[in-house]
Amino acid sequence: MSTEPAVKPLKVALFGSGRIGQVHARNIAAHPDLELAWIADPFIEGARKLAAGTGAVAVESADEVFANGDLDAVVIGSPTNTHVELIARAMAQGVAALCEKPIDLDIDRALACRDAIRGNNTPLMLGFNRRFDPNFAAIQSRVAGGEIGRLEQLTIISRDPAPAPAAYIATSGGIFRDMSIHDLDMARFFVPDIIEVSATGTNVFCDYIEEAGDFDSVVITLRGSEGELVTITNSRHSAYGYDQRLEAFGSEGMLNAGNVSPTTVRKYGATGTEEADAYLPFFLERYAEAYRNELDSFAKAIRSGTACSPGFDDGLQALALANAAEESARSGRAVKIGQP
Amino acid sequence: MSTEPAVKPLKVALFGSGRIGQVHARNIAAHPDLELAWIADPFIEGARKLAAGTGAVAVESADEVFANGDLDAVVIGSPTNTHVELIARAMAQGVAALCEKPIDLDIDRALACRDAIRGNNTPLMLGFNRRFDPNFAAIQSRVAGGEIGRLEQLTIISRDPAPAPAAYIATSGGIFRDMSIHDLDMARFFVPDIIEVSATGTNVFCDYIEEAGDFDSVVITLRGSEGELVTITNSRHSAYGYDQRLEAFGSEGMLNAGNVSPTTVRKYGATGTEEADAYLPFFLERYAEAYRNELDSFAKAIRSGTACSPGFDDGLQALALANAAEESARSGRAVKIGQP
Amino acid sequence: MSTEPAVKPLKVALFGSGRIGQVHARNIAAHPDLELAWIADPFIEGARKLAAGTGAVAVESADEVFANGDLDAVVIGSPTNTHVELIARAMAQGVAALCEKPIDLDIDRALACRDAIRGNNTPLMLGFNRRFDPNFAAIQSRVAGGEIGRLEQLTIISRDPAPAPAAYIATSGGIFRDMSIHDLDMARFFVPDIIEVSATGTNVFCDYIEEAGDFDSVVITLRGSEGELVTITNSRHSAYGYDQRLEAFGSEGMLNAGNVSPTTVRKYGATGTEEADAYLPFFLERYAEAYRNELDSFAKAIRSGTACSPGFDDGLQALALANAAEESARSGRAVKIGQP
Amino acid sequence: MSTEPAVKPLKVALFGSGRIGQVHARNIAAHPDLELAWIADPFIEGARKLAAGTGAVAVESADEVFANGDLDAVVIGSPTNTHVELIARAMAQGVAALCEKPIDLDIDRALACRDAIRGNNTPLMLGFNRRFDPNFAAIQSRVAGGEIGRLEQLTIISRDPAPAPAAYIATSGGIFRDMSIHDLDMARFFVPDIIEVSATGTNVFCDYIEEAGDFDSVVITLRGSEGELVTITNSRHSAYGYDQRLEAFGSEGMLNAGNVSPTTVRKYGATGTEEADAYLPFFLERYAEAYRNELDSFAKAIRSGTACSPGFDDGLQALALANAAEESARSGRAVKIGQP
Repeated sequence: MSTEPAVKPLKVALFGSGRIGQVHARNIAAHPDLELAWIADPFIEGARKLAAGTGAVAVESADEVFANGDLDAVVIGSPTNTHVELIARAMAQGVAALCEKPIDLDIDRALACRDAIRGNNTPLMLGFNRRFDPNFAAIQSRVAGGEIGRLEQLTIISRDPAPAPAAYIATSGGIFRDMSIHDLDMARFFVPDIIEVSATGTNVFCDYIEEAGDFDSVVITLRGSEGELVTITNSRHSAYGYDQRLEAFGSEGMLNAGNVSPTTVRKYGATGTEEADAYLPFFLERYAEAYRNELDSFAKAIRSGTACSPGFDDGLQALALANAAEESARSGRAVKIGQP
Repeated sequence: MSTEPAVKPLKVALFGSGRIGQVHARNIAAHPDLELAWIADPFIEGARKLAAGTGAVAVESADEVFANGDLDAVVIGSPTNTHVELIARAMAQGVAALCEKPIDLDIDRALACRDAIRGNNTPLMLGFNRRFDPNFAAIQSRVAGGEIGRLEQLTIISRDPAPAPAAYIATSGGIFRDMSIHDLDMARFFVPDIIEVSATGTNVFCDYIEEAGDFDSVVITLRGSEGELVTITNSRHSAYGYDQRLEAFGSEGMLNAGNVSPTTVRKYGATGTEEADAYLPFFLERYAEAYRNELDSFAKAIRSGTACSPGFDDGLQALALANAAEESARSGRAVKIGQP
Repeated sequence: MSTEPAVKPLKVALFGSGRIGQVHARNIAAHPDLELAWIADPFIEGARKLAAGTGAVAVESADEVFANGDLDAVVIGSPTNTHVELIARAMAQGVAALCEKPIDLDIDRALACRDAIRGNNTPLMLGFNRRFDPNFAAIQSRVAGGEIGRLEQLTIISRDPAPAPAAYIATSGGIFRDMSIHDLDMARFFVPDIIEVSATGTNVFCDYIEEAGDFDSVVITLRGSEGELVTITNSRHSAYGYDQRLEAFGSEGMLNAGNVSPTTVRKYGATGTEEADAYLPFFLERYAEAYRNELDSFAKAIRSGTACSPGFDDGLQALALANAAEESARSGRAVKIGQP
Repeated sequence: MSTEPAVKPLKVALFGSGRIGQVHARNIAAHPDLELAWIADPFIEGARKLAAGTGAVAVESADEVFANGDLDAVVIGSPTNTHVELIARAMAQGVAALCEKPIDLDIDRALACRDAIRGNNTPLMLGFNRRFDPNFAAIQSRVAGGEIGRLEQLTIISRDPAPAPAAYIATSGGIFRDMSIHDLDMARFFVPDIIEVSATGTNVFCDYIEEAGDFDSVVITLRGSEGELVTITNSRHSAYGYDQRLEAFGSEGMLNAGNVSPTTVRKYGATGTEEADAYLPFFLERYAEAYRNELDSFAKAIRSGTACSPGFDDGLQALALANAAEESARSGRAVKIGQP
């Protein structure tokens, strides 16, 4: 992470003061090249409380944010249905944007947004934070460097500690668009060109997910254009905490990354040995460093004028794959992927 | 393993003196309750060479074996197309049989065999040796004992060190019936009632497999009647040796088993740390103990009069799943499983 | 670590702008309850350079620091022979102090300092940072909580990546006072009352250490008043990086902590498997979190008025143990420990 | 292990039908080049029971054994005080011998035995079985092959699961001669020339060991002639089972070997993760393979006429080190080692 302060930090506005907004607020405030200037949330109390600890100004509306002539960048952590409008406004005004995934639950709205910003070169990054996890990033970099030869199979296991409440599930867009989308993007981090999607979903533990017409457990198989096979295994719960693992199998070897324990301590007793700590509980802890690295990458892209990665198109592709997975799970047929 | 010798060991004939026959010959000879009396192989030189070290009599034909009135059991390790006939002869004569998988590459021949032996209670075991691997057996037993609650997801990774030669591939029956069948049986060891199969196959590294119309890499997804999801990932090669892992995810925890190293030694150097040995190279080494345990289970079933497990029907079911996987990989559709 | 900013941060002066001073400077600047107000170093260029990035004022002498009436605390990272005087001045002025180890290489000077500050309750912490390492701290806390019953044996392995240059070795005070002292304090973190010390030293790889009359490799055995046995194994080099491990063996179990890898990635190849990353190279990386935690503990002790731990007496005890170890290594006799 | 049967197996007599005798009986019976012909034990019921399962003849006295003209080898697993006489008789008669450690608890008797057999080239092996443990043997071989450069430090941790009963302790010769002797030989496996011994002993958990004037916990430090440092940590109990580990630190890297679990299974739950099985409980399980390898090495040495290793002198040296360790622990002084 950059440690040398720039002459004048970039002025940033944050949309959303919820759980993810709080992560971004802390990281923006701590970043030497970013200044958290505004926090916008219609729930103004949340914005005010978060602003108090960071020196930012709390505002209610996007209008108040975009009215500032010296705004350099926005970080969009507000509800999903506000994303496309905020992206479009930022791009129109030449303000860099880092937007949480997904672009939108409705691919048509996402495509319309793409049309609206076509040709605009203002930096725009999609918040697939896991690409910045040091473990997964190291594997991706080593695979890209040829360390295991040609990539042939990728195995992703991704389980949340517990399902979101029923109210959230109802508007989440379903497990594929809400949860698997992170893993679909991770698949594309290694295998950018996916040509076919198959998926199977079941309901094994959560009644209210089933009642909402959604699955609580799914398996997705992707085929890459070079014959790569990717499997994603998801569950909405995990008794042993957040389970986030990845394994890259190549023609000349294999690399994998396990879960993260808070310490290296192991316990030895009469009934079990080498017992490690409980894993980090959920994404705020597991991906704390990833969020910091993501923000740093965003800041550097703005400063250097290079393209943000992952970008808008990556968000679109992940959404298209999530839709295809849903279609496959419903129809029992493999779904071919074209250009969204 | 049983260590107390029975008053009079069971007289066993072995069919086949090839690689797998040699494993069985050694284990039968070392088992306190079994006597290796005959080794049958039309390639009589092989039978003779193997017999020399074990005290058995080498014969050319099955007729010579079955002519012995005091024959107690046969172990069938001869080519696949001889299995159904040898099973039928053994059963007809009331001689216990342990037959290597698969029953036959042709399910119709396997079904005909089932009809031929219907109602016969002579012990008949199918050689799915992996069920007797101490690691997988321990997981299955602990899952069955409720240690991780209800089983929800099973992840099987199974990769051979290198593909069989082109000549073998041509008559192997294809990756699903030749290789995946072991993993399909392992899936049924945990989830006996599979109701749907999806599979995807690709060709990423081996021209002669592709030319034979077969896949070198496949992923199979199974759905159990209770909503369990099973994924099987297969490759015909692996740069780091035989890769045989399994992970059982339940409502209350997870159990998995990694590969087996010859020692517990770890190496620490400037560029890498905690480096373990190369894995055991292939099935003869990896499953040496499983083959011994399997034979011991067979001997005990004969002595106790209890049913062999896995039995003939398990062989039939695994074959049906392999056929369904092939159909799914060819058609791009999930295949429902009924009663074979 | 505390994240809520105090109304008015404590004003801190840092002595020393070298390697360890830079660590403290960064941590003080980042701590919400501390303000890095002055950096003092006779090598004023170093102080200025470090101050530039932190907003502190660079000064040459201690006099300039202690002349400030609103000074709340000092962090002493200057050369060892300045420690006792700076401690005494801070205490005399009622300014809290965090002093790097050792108090002094000469125990008589350290004892004289103790006499000089006797009865002074101003917070005074000794910089045995390893007590704040999350791994070792977790073990100590679990042992103290009774998780492994009564502590019986403690095994500490501590190896530096490479020896310091000859010039440093000459004035270091020797391996026991310079390097082992950290491990001796770690021993006392678990077994505060040590009653006997034995040590053996050898020279196996470094000529200039031998020429300086010092050892490059030592083993120390400590006996606690309750019969606990502690072994410390030290080497001035390690081909696989900084090696810092600890194992606590108790009547009811064992807890240990291994080294720290930057990621959880493992590599699998034909000649080796499960290979982890190279370890973090040296103390700046390995104990980065420990230094932050140490500073936070110091800040909290000042705020709460509770005693600092480890304190001055811990520094004295560690020095006495180092002296006893040297005496034992030279004489071949176990040395009894009384009150220093 | 050798699998090809020799034309005519070597006829072996076993002395002792106790726990260790039973291990040897089973291994001799299973070895293709050895025939267990006689089992001698004054407690004839033990000998008979053991003989029943192996086809050997049970006899009461050594005279009956040595009266057999076709005796090729003896394995001595009888009480320690019978060792020197049985060794001497075997050597005098030109019968190869494998003798359990120690040669004798009294070094003068051991030295007298050495004088008695001086110049006799009949194969004579000392039963330091751990040299044949696949894990430790692999490290020794890799160290000898230069894989970690020059060996500088060796760390041995060795803990029994529970102390022997009081009656056994009383006649055991004390922890150094009874238990540490194995570790002292292991030290010599890596560092044959030890020049100095220091030891510290304590009593922390077992009253009857203390009452017998023995220690229940000891630490031994050895210095090799090339400056190598060896530490041995022993305890007479271990809540997590038999603890047998070794770590070889060299100028260019490190190799270590951990304990052995029965399977590779790991468990993941809410309070702990990656939990391995309980370790193998004690030496019969942990060193089962070592005992087989040891016997095979003995058989091969007889056949090939090469010297047995470890030999009589290794037994003598280990005993001398044990005596030196006891002396050091009692006197608080390092003890120099000369030629015994």
